[in-house]
Amino acid sequence: MQNNTPLFRYRIHLAYNGTRFFGWQIQPHQISVQECLTQALEKIVKLSGAIVGAGRTDTGVHAHSFYVHFDCEYEIDTQTITNKLNRMLPADIVIFSITAVALDFHARFSAKKRKYRYTITQTKNPFLQETAYFFPFPLNIEVMNEACKLLIGTHDFTSFSKLHTDVTNNICTIYSAQWQKNGDVLEFYIEANRFLRNMVRAITGTLLDVGQEKIDIQEFQEIIAAKNRQRAGQSIPACGLSLIDIEY
Amino acid sequence: MQNNTPLFRYRIHLAYNGTRFFGWQIQPHQISVQECLTQALEKIVKLSGAIVGAGRTDTGVHAHSFYVHFDCEYEIDTQTITNKLNRMLPADIVIFSITAVALDFHARFSAKKRKYRYTITQTKNPFLQETAYFFPFPLNIEVMNEACKLLIGTHDFTSFSKLHTDVTNNICTIYSAQWQKNGDVLEFYIEANRFLRNMVRAITGTLLDVGQEKIDIQEFQEIIAAKNRQRAGQSIPACGLSLIDIEY
Repeated sequence: MQNNTPLFRYRIHLAYNGTRFFGWQIQPHQISVQECLTQALEKIVKLSGAIVGAGRTDTGVHAHSFYVHFDCEYEIDTQTITNKLNRMLPADIVIFSITAVALDFHARFSAKKRKYRYTITQTKNPFLQETAYFFPFPLNIEVMNEACKLLIGTHDFTSFSKLHTDVTNNICTIYSAQWQKNGDVLEFYIEANRFLRNMVRAITGTLLDVGQEKIDIQEFQEIIAAKNRQRAGQSIPACGLSLIDIEY
Repeated sequence: MQNNTPLFRYRIHLAYNGTRFFGWQIQPHQISVQECLTQALEKIVKLSGAIVGAGRTDTGVHAHSFYVHFDCEYEIDTQTITNKLNRMLPADIVIFSITAVALDFHARFSAKKRKYRYTITQTKNPFLQETAYFFPFPLNIEVMNEACKLLIGTHDFTSFSKLHTDVTNNICTIYSAQWQKNGDVLEFYIEANRFLRNMVRAITGTLLDVGQEKIDIQEFQEIIAAKNRQRAGQSIPACGLSLIDIEY
């Protein structure tokens, strides 16, 4: 009988301010985006199984663009559910849209590219405390952008990955990596087919060492080649990081 | 003896995110910007008297530009004190600069013009929860800007003032008042020689009634003329309001 039940899959496009969440993924005794969203959705839709996110953002990391899929046994009115969710969810989660998708769509595995942004403010800014890392030290952006060029392409990024994660290899393809300056605010954009845990924050931290001329381009190249997390710079705070785009 | 003591006056230029403060002014049992700043300053400078702010912002109201003056009996190194204060103060208060000023300078009474901004977001935005008011209803900006023209000039603004305040009259001169649209974000800028308590939030709330065409331009004109707080629209939330400029 179960096999004949029709199934409908929907994709949710959303954003969240990660400040007060312990990341995307449900975990005991901590508030997560997945838990908030699941609880709201369960009140208005009979879900078949768990909702699946595009990836696991860490505690405090934001998402300006995030995707989720869920299944249910009947068709839903996507606009009505969108409106209801926005009224039910706290102010730090917003639903942009819900779209019907094919059953082979997968929020995580169908993603082709992901883009992150890391934001730094060089002056203390009381309006950016949640979304930028305050880093007042002088930075040489030209040199940082030179180092970025070494990231482009397919490499083993073990040097920038948290150890003991559940992935089988640390090879990623970086499509673009660049710093932009808008007054006192610096933004680092990086796009890849996949990212390892903590990778953007470790890369950004190491690029800040380059920008302060603590290490030079040659050393940055050696760090990538070393495939050793001990070699790279510090992972920097979550508040500056946001997942800004996912391409399917 | 006391009369011969030299006195030096300094002006602090600062900004604060008002979200967690119960306004500028010190009050019992509540955290205020004045208290935070006084406590930090007292640890590094021997103050002669209380620090004086440019005005009293209400609970939750922000200041992108605020001025304070204080006196002490000796000359201070303004850059050193600025740096120390920024390290001591919480992330939601930032000191831009400290400048030596004449003894007749007064942070409140020397101010010639003040400019406020009220920010509205028409779509739910998890990154603007602290600094904009979420107002999803359609608004006719052209009509709102027509109504704004009626505010310009010298008028009795009793209709937009909180009752029982300590001012002797409710006459203010408005130099400019205008709405600007940037995508889903609407900003209302208003500049005057002085503002009454709650005035910007009451004016903005009434202009939202105009924008929704609940009241027309003629009625807006009548509300101003009525000098009666009962006639105007609701005061809207503090989060969208920021003091953005003071001219001396």
